Amino acid sequence: MRKRIKAFGEVMMRLEVPNYRTLTQTNTLDVSYSGTGVNVLSALSQYGHDTAMITKIPNNSVGDAAIAHLRRLGIHTEDIVRGGDFIGQYFLEKGFSVRPSKVTYGERKTSSFCTSEFADYDVDSLLKDVDVLHFCGIVLAISEQTRNLAIAIARRAKQLGIHLVFDCNYRPKLWEKQDVEPRSFYETILHEVDSCFMTEKDAQFILGTEARGEATKQQLETLLPIVKEKFSLEMIAGTIRNQTTEITQAIQGYVYWGELFHYSNEYIFEIFDRVGAGDGFSSGIIHGWLTNMSTNEIVEFATAASVLAHTTYGDSPISTIDDIWSVVKNPGRSQLER
Amino acid sequence: MRKRIKAFGEVMMRLEVPNYRTLTQTNTLDVSYSGTGVNVLSALSQYGHDTAMITKIPNNSVGDAAIAHLRRLGIHTEDIVRGGDFIGQYFLEKGFSVRPSKVTYGERKTSSFCTSEFADYDVDSLLKDVDVLHFCGIVLAISEQTRNLAIAIARRAKQLGIHLVFDCNYRPKLWEKQDVEPRSFYETILHEVDSCFMTEKDAQFILGTEARGEATKQQLETLLPIVKEKFSLEMIAGTIRNQTTEITQAIQGYVYWGELFHYSNEYIFEIFDRVGAGDGFSSGIIHGWLTNMSTNEIVEFATAASVLAHTTYGDSPISTIDDIWSVVKNPGRSQLER
Amino acid sequence: MRKRIKAFGEVMMRLEVPNYRTLTQTNTLDVSYSGTGVNVLSALSQYGHDTAMITKIPNNSVGDAAIAHLRRLGIHTEDIVRGGDFIGQYFLEKGFSVRPSKVTYGERKTSSFCTSEFADYDVDSLLKDVDVLHFCGIVLAISEQTRNLAIAIARRAKQLGIHLVFDCNYRPKLWEKQDVEPRSFYETILHEVDSCFMTEKDAQFILGTEARGEATKQQLETLLPIVKEKFSLEMIAGTIRNQTTEITQAIQGYVYWGELFHYSNEYIFEIFDRVGAGDGFSSGIIHGWLTNMSTNEIVEFATAASVLAHTTYGDSPISTIDDIWSVVKNPGRSQLER
Amino acid sequence: MRKRIKAFGEVMMRLEVPNYRTLTQTNTLDVSYSGTGVNVLSALSQYGHDTAMITKIPNNSVGDAAIAHLRRLGIHTEDIVRGGDFIGQYFLEKGFSVRPSKVTYGERKTSSFCTSEFADYDVDSLLKDVDVLHFCGIVLAISEQTRNLAIAIARRAKQLGIHLVFDCNYRPKLWEKQDVEPRSFYETILHEVDSCFMTEKDAQFILGTEARGEATKQQLETLLPIVKEKFSLEMIAGTIRNQTTEITQAIQGYVYWGELFHYSNEYIFEIFDRVGAGDGFSSGIIHGWLTNMSTNEIVEFATAASVLAHTTYGDSPISTIDDIWSVVKNPGRSQLER
Amino acid sequence: MRKRIKAFGEVMMRLEVPNYRTLTQTNTLDVSYSGTGVNVLSALSQYGHDTAMITKIPNNSVGDAAIAHLRRLGIHTEDIVRGGDFIGQYFLEKGFSVRPSKVTYGERKTSSFCTSEFADYDVDSLLKDVDVLHFCGIVLAISEQTRNLAIAIARRAKQLGIHLVFDCNYRPKLWEKQDVEPRSFYETILHEVDSCFMTEKDAQFILGTEARGEATKQQLETLLPIVKEKFSLEMIAGTIRNQTTEITQAIQGYVYWGELFHYSNEYIFEIFDRVGAGDGFSSGIIHGWLTNMSTNEIVEFATAASVLAHTTYGDSPISTIDDIWSVVKNPGRSQLER
Amino acid sequence: MRKRIKAFGEVMMRLEVPNYRTLTQTNTLDVSYSGTGVNVLSALSQYGHDTAMITKIPNNSVGDAAIAHLRRLGIHTEDIVRGGDFIGQYFLEKGFSVRPSKVTYGERKTSSFCTSEFADYDVDSLLKDVDVLHFCGIVLAISEQTRNLAIAIARRAKQLGIHLVFDCNYRPKLWEKQDVEPRSFYETILHEVDSCFMTEKDAQFILGTEARGEATKQQLETLLPIVKEKFSLEMIAGTIRNQTTEITQAIQGYVYWGELFHYSNEYIFEIFDRVGAGDGFSSGIIHGWLTNMSTNEIVEFATAASVLAHTTYGDSPISTIDDIWSVVKNPGRSQLER
Repeated sequence: MRKRIKAFGEVMMRLEVPNYRTLTQTNTLDVSYSGTGVNVLSALSQYGHDTAMITKIPNNSVGDAAIAHLRRLGIHTEDIVRGGDFIGQYFLEKGFSVRPSKVTYGERKTSSFCTSEFADYDVDSLLKDVDVLHFCGIVLAISEQTRNLAIAIARRAKQLGIHLVFDCNYRPKLWEKQDVEPRSFYETILHEVDSCFMTEKDAQFILGTEARGEATKQQLETLLPIVKEKFSLEMIAGTIRNQTTEITQAIQGYVYWGELFHYSNEYIFEIFDRVGAGDGFSSGIIHGWLTNMSTNEIVEFATAASVLAHTTYGDSPISTIDDIWSVVKNPGRSQLER
Repeated sequence: MRKRIKAFGEVMMRLEVPNYRTLTQTNTLDVSYSGTGVNVLSALSQYGHDTAMITKIPNNSVGDAAIAHLRRLGIHTEDIVRGGDFIGQYFLEKGFSVRPSKVTYGERKTSSFCTSEFADYDVDSLLKDVDVLHFCGIVLAISEQTRNLAIAIARRAKQLGIHLVFDCNYRPKLWEKQDVEPRSFYETILHEVDSCFMTEKDAQFILGTEARGEATKQQLETLLPIVKEKFSLEMIAGTIRNQTTEITQAIQGYVYWGELFHYSNEYIFEIFDRVGAGDGFSSGIIHGWLTNMSTNEIVEFATAASVLAHTTYGDSPISTIDDIWSVVKNPGRSQLER
Repeated sequence: MRKRIKAFGEVMMRLEVPNYRTLTQTNTLDVSYSGTGVNVLSALSQYGHDTAMITKIPNNSVGDAAIAHLRRLGIHTEDIVRGGDFIGQYFLEKGFSVRPSKVTYGERKTSSFCTSEFADYDVDSLLKDVDVLHFCGIVLAISEQTRNLAIAIARRAKQLGIHLVFDCNYRPKLWEKQDVEPRSFYETILHEVDSCFMTEKDAQFILGTEARGEATKQQLETLLPIVKEKFSLEMIAGTIRNQTTEITQAIQGYVYWGELFHYSNEYIFEIFDRVGAGDGFSSGIIHGWLTNMSTNEIVEFATAASVLAHTTYGDSPISTIDDIWSVVKNPGRSQLER
Repeated sequence: MRKRIKAFGEVMMRLEVPNYRTLTQTNTLDVSYSGTGVNVLSALSQYGHDTAMITKIPNNSVGDAAIAHLRRLGIHTEDIVRGGDFIGQYFLEKGFSVRPSKVTYGERKTSSFCTSEFADYDVDSLLKDVDVLHFCGIVLAISEQTRNLAIAIARRAKQLGIHLVFDCNYRPKLWEKQDVEPRSFYETILHEVDSCFMTEKDAQFILGTEARGEATKQQLETLLPIVKEKFSLEMIAGTIRNQTTEITQAIQGYVYWGELFHYSNEYIFEIFDRVGAGDGFSSGIIHGWLTNMSTNEIVEFATAASVLAHTTYGDSPISTIDDIWSVVKNPGRSQLER
Repeated sequence: MRKRIKAFGEVMMRLEVPNYRTLTQTNTLDVSYSGTGVNVLSALSQYGHDTAMITKIPNNSVGDAAIAHLRRLGIHTEDIVRGGDFIGQYFLEKGFSVRPSKVTYGERKTSSFCTSEFADYDVDSLLKDVDVLHFCGIVLAISEQTRNLAIAIARRAKQLGIHLVFDCNYRPKLWEKQDVEPRSFYETILHEVDSCFMTEKDAQFILGTEARGEATKQQLETLLPIVKEKFSLEMIAGTIRNQTTEITQAIQGYVYWGELFHYSNEYIFEIFDRVGAGDGFSSGIIHGWLTNMSTNEIVEFATAASVLAHTTYGDSPISTIDDIWSVVKNPGRSQLER
Repeated sequence: MRKRIKAFGEVMMRLEVPNYRTLTQTNTLDVSYSGTGVNVLSALSQYGHDTAMITKIPNNSVGDAAIAHLRRLGIHTEDIVRGGDFIGQYFLEKGFSVRPSKVTYGERKTSSFCTSEFADYDVDSLLKDVDVLHFCGIVLAISEQTRNLAIAIARRAKQLGIHLVFDCNYRPKLWEKQDVEPRSFYETILHEVDSCFMTEKDAQFILGTEARGEATKQQLETLLPIVKEKFSLEMIAGTIRNQTTEITQAIQGYVYWGELFHYSNEYIFEIFDRVGAGDGFSSGIIHGWLTNMSTNEIVEFATAASVLAHTTYGDSPISTIDDIWSVVKNPGRSQLER
């Protein structure tokens, strides 16, 4: 059941202030390397799949470190193109209680990946024998060049019969300064896509509608069928998030497949590291689907995977299949039973 | 609206055991430099004011480090007198859950500041063009010398028409070993003061009354008007603190101004670093007053500032105005929204 | 009231991944040295007793470090036999929220202690003037050699009139691979023992009964009298543990002494470091008993000691008598009151 | 004798791998903020001068941290323009013995500073009452925009009668990819400059000559007089560097002033942190000149300052005047004399 | 020129006391995973070869961490058999100046690898298309089981026509407690081997001769030809080591190939981390040979690789081909040339 | 041959800036506890003797930590009197190469120890069965109170027939601000003392002479016989220190016993941590003398012990007897021989 999954996207450097300090208070930073694709592949590699990243990284010490980090996660790095000047990065100042976390991005538009071109990638060779190709909406947002690149690769993958998984990840801020209409690019890409991760807000944006005042589930059950039909999608999935107390959060997963909505249980937990937790969900869905779980199992597995991704360090999920089913079975249990 | 605020008081070295260890369990300590005045100025500097510390610090590597630390907080250090032997210090062993934090003080009475004399300070020059001078009750408690010094400086500041803000900070333990009656010194100083931070317990001590069995707000509304009138104060402010669960705390701010009590909302949160959180409140009040907020805004801003000061590392508040208003608007929200 | 207490058992190296990382995510480990006996003696040493460890440790740098660590805890190390090849160790990956902690043991059966023999110990000399000898059920589980050793030492201690305290600590996993019936060894040892720590599950195992469907207290009150009579025990004690929310735990202690069950209050708290918290309870019971507290005081003191042991770093309890009584008096209080 | 010195240039983030690891081996980085101007001002601030940085820094957490860091060094930050997207950065992997250090630059051309324009700076106001303005050749190299900016600011400063100090810092690599002739820009700027730091290689580049086979001092004594006369410079200074053993380095400073070359003693030492050591020299020259030392004292002070800058952490010199004279007096002495 | 190289051997956990402390002085350890085979493959992977480790590692968190670490080094881990109880480990207390480093081994004989059997490995499949198989003499020393396993695997590899590289690594201490004659096993294995790493002491041991009083080169030139002929070896290589001052060391490499001895230059350097530096040499020889360098180039490259391995952190060499040639060209150069 | 040795003196907190940073550059400090007496006992405990510290330490967390630290070193702490306010401390900024280390003392005169009185100590009980009592000249320097206390204890020890060892440690700076003549107190104490550590400078001070222009050995051979006779001393010992290169130091030990001067070999080494290295020498002398080594062995052992104390972290020597003899035998050897 081992499948070959690749992700096309950017590798980012994460520079985190340790110990709940702020950037002005620290002399040290924790460094790691992530990105939506990296995170999804990290989890899928942990689940036993053969994974590889399609991206471009500079040919210097920073690039070497990024690649070593990806290999540590179990991701194959032979496909990575080397060149360009630098990798994008973000600074993370973790919040505490009512103090929210702060993310500050460095330069991104001119990174090795964001300036890479279709010709940099030996696409047909890279996509050979690939079962699933994953990419995300941020690639659409960065610049015209990355948009075109993403669309070209998606089209070629579609022609080659690869199952395309797309994470909407619509971030209005990233589009703000560009004089383009984001919706048209989403529409273009969604016509290529087979499966998609989307919240009710993403759906509103894509359909150009608003759905005020209704409960989240109502919105989802109204909007997702329209999206699914419009773009001939096989499956749409996502999570509903609630803050339950000052300390705890709750999430519930949903998968819309066939004509049915499947919801997971609601999981309540404390967050340790939220970044990448959504990728924990999407990789769980992909794994469940690739290994022929029932839809109920898929959504339960994926949601518990996302819960664990909130409780582990770093953007990239590292929990094992056993860890995840154990949370499904004992959702409230924790702490060492020596 | 940038104002010039100075604080007269001691700079302390904080030596904290990291990672919830105890002093017997650690080989390393986190070091920083703080004090009531430093904390108040740190916040006010962050809010855009021109701040400077009036104190005495030894002319050695430790003194240099303290000054560099204050500069990092945005506090001007040109006024600081150099000399004497050492700076006071305290050791902090942070508690966890039901295990309380422990504070152990080193020697203090013979520090550079506590042995400084009126003649060490070029007072008239230091107080020139100052809008607000802040000092706190601990200075009264340390020794006869610091008491006399504080009173002399307060009197001169009053003569020069500077708005004097005093934080009662009555700590019975600090007075215990001295054969004097603390109340008389508080009375002396309060006659010079314009605005004052005070809890219901401070008020009882100052008036020499007890108010058992009544709710905190009742006590405040009974006692503060008497204090305000007796000492012709312009404003009295403070916070009411409650533990809501084993994990969370609540605080609510109050300002008694004119004839009215103004209360903030009650904020519930988990504590990361409590020391200096009261200074987060008082600096919020000062800023609100200096920038002509409404009394309701003042108390809300100051209380939210104090809440954030509970959630940030170190004694000295570092949150921005935007951070604070964001908490006022979303009191229960937290965690990264990537 | 200073008593002489010794413990016979293994010293383990604890290698902990810091900052809630996993082993694959870390380049550093926190190292300390513990074990049931070490933990019990650490607490008793803190309470003012004269304590010493009876064990065998290799004669190399690792052994020296273990001994230095024990001395730091206040445990005398002159009795420790030096020799053999290594000390057992375990890796601790601390969990967070719904993610449970993971413990991975290294090799243990061939450690210095586990290959030590009766002749290695100058037993009569080591047991001279000892008031209490403590050992635990893990020693029965490791191998035939350690079982025989433990039984031989227990018998000799009994002959010498020393009060024998035994912590059942029945761990089915440790017995799994051995082709022996654990119950018979427990029966053998319990006939030598004076006081014993035991849960309702231990009691079921020892009596070979099951008690499904009943509440824990009912089970205890049914089973412990049978055990106590069968093995002529003086006292049986233990704790009842409940998870109250996703964040908090509750424990309640019990002592069955004379014909009566005594229960402590239930304490609610958040866990910082669970390993060794049970040893915090048993050492509290031993101290209370040695210093002639009332049974109600004993169980309250021991339970609060265990609560604090959950909130302090490391396996070995380090709280003082004052710390513990303070929790008894203010069970919900926490955080710094500066 | 306190003077007002400003520097115009870029603030860089330095991300250093600790403990002689490489980027692939580390999970943490030491972070600080530096740059030629910052380094020069750090030293001059330590010597008692009034210093301020003229630069542009983004208005986010990273910018705040950079500013706090500069304040800690004693540099005034009120002149700093806020805006743009990010600050340039470099990664430092420190070498050991025969393994050289590696520096990897991140993106720089589109940083806040490098995209800043003349109109961003309130130049006349910033240059008011300034005694010395320092800038360096790297600003010429980055892009046409920074070149034009530097030349415009230098011209205005010259018009205002400010003493202009220029550090050649010619780095062929930075010019490589640009289709321009660097020498012409150097010629343009040198006509504005009063004092200049230059090696024999810089001189060859500026004059477009080569001087093979000759000893360094011969080259200097041949070339610098030509440069000095051609650009009507007041003073040219620099250091000669030799590796004396596998472990130790030697440097000797020179100042060419009036018609005479003045050389310092040769200092032999082990390097701890080389970056910024040249700025230790140039700030020493500036201080010596501003405080009217003799030329021999100037070159001795500056060279010893540079030596100490090789032995202290970070790019920015932090030694005191006393530290420096002590090295002049005891050049081979070291280690604690308790 | 990319070749496929595998190593058969043990993966060890290295637990290092940081900052030149001793085990009794530390609360933290740096953890990494190495072994002769790992080190050789780490370097060869860095040089662009396809490498994989043949070993057995436990199926738990520690095993996962070891595998992630190997992947980070670029070594493929798909061949690794999972099972058994633990991996061997050693503690490293780094020395300083005249204080030598101390290595303390934990249990090793019963590790996953040392208890693995021929049947655990799918040998023919693992050895398919392999160009070089590397293993070392320590495997002969641990126990009868590992000896038999090593010999069986070597024989099968030989039958399959794989070039066998053997590192003698004769360590008398490891053989001491076993009642066997080590020489006979070395003779057995050397008859299978193609290339071999050997010092003059190894040669004396293998031939059962002594060669007192002669210089090292004389001994090598006398003994290696006898060994080479006796066992029909293709090549023998090694290094000569000298301490040149209290701070510096020197090494010189030699290769005996055909009928000629080829010596590298002597390199003088300061040691940062000596463990694994010999593996830096042997991997350099293998790489040189696989890529058809001249013998002089091979020995120069390998020796410089070993020099750099002394100056980088960790057992496993990580320098690049460019790094190594740069040391060959500038043997005494060091430190940052910014 | 196990002897009982006690030391009377102060326990200091050492707060060290890690990684060659300065106090202004650090957010963390390494903390340990030392003092001349502690250091001497640490070594003697390591050599197998029964050691205990006679001192006074505050009854708070800091005092507990100091005691735990002493226990870790193997020093008995039961004799320590608890009370007073704080312990003295010093800050250590380690130098690098030509940059010297800096020591900054905190308050000391009013520490628990320095304000302790004869009546605080149960002297006769503390001195029972003691073979050697060690104390040092710093105790004479701090204040009149500590002088009187030291003299009283020395006298009582002498009456009880205990061998008194005194380390002159004359530090002019400590006496500067006091209006007394230090020599008279040294004379008083030396009349009680049996053995003494003294340099040629100490001897000059004690005899009130100067010996300019002569080589150190000449001075020693001239002055020590006069001192020895004047105060009827049994033995005088010390070290001669030279800097040999920019990186290395040399020391040579001497013992003047009977009528003969015995010199050790000269040892050359690099310093890692100089503080306490003199105590490494004096404890080596005491051990050699107590175990009846020959004088040549004594001085060789003690000097090598001091050499190692320069190469180990912390003030307190921790090397073993084997470590030390190994340096005597291989004075230039170093680094790991795996």
